[in-house]
Amino acid sequence: MRKRSSCPIASALDIIGDKWTLLIVRDLFFGKRRYSEFANAMESIPTNLLSDRLKRLCENGLAKKVKYMAHPVRYQYELTEKGEDLFRILQELAIWGHKHIKDTLNPPQPFEI
Amino acid sequence: MRKRSSCPIASALDIIGDKWTLLIVRDLFFGKRRYSEFANAMESIPTNLLSDRLKRLCENGLAKKVKYMAHPVRYQYELTEKGEDLFRILQELAIWGHKHIKDTLNPPQPFEI
Repeated sequence: MRKRSSCPIASALDIIGDKWTLLIVRDLFFGKRRYSEFANAMESIPTNLLSDRLKRLCENGLAKKVKYMAHPVRYQYELTEKGEDLFRILQELAIWGHKHIKDTLNPPQPFEI
Repeated sequence: MRKRSSCPIASALDIIGDKWTLLIVRDLFFGKRRYSEFANAMESIPTNLLSDRLKRLCENGLAKKVKYMAHPVRYQYELTEKGEDLFRILQELAIWGHKHIKDTLNPPQPFEI
């Protein structure tokens, strides 16, 4: 991951500055764990983007892949501490979105305002 | 702007979910106002992306273009109330970036933690 500057905002956006990464993190906060659960999100993330973003989430240490079944091998995803620390960013996005964008829902748990 | 869902987080990311938009907003909070000032940011934003993002910031009501000279005509950019409300998102990005990404600066004013 190329770091554009020593600015902490720019460096954060190097990792999470796109339209999909934080939606997967949102779903992890909602308790989703498996590929098929992320694929079923109402935003219909294309499968190639989902695979890429899950891989990057793990490479950047925001999530980890954990084996939950041995035969056949099956994995699920969990937030790391670094990933869990994104909570306040997501909550501020939810507050701003709900305030300023028409026809957006009041954020449910755990993002309740 | 296509809205992917009624989720306020997804709807916020429809507008600001990229690597550059929030860096221009950051610079507006630092008091920068003119195209050349944004172009000189240490992240070296490509000029085609800068023009596009400034246009979108105005179209989405986050900033406005204000004439500051009549002959020749010159414009500068200012945050709207909707744009100013992004402050807490930027601050949380700065907190997270400084905590979790190596060699990032302690955020200066106005983002001081």
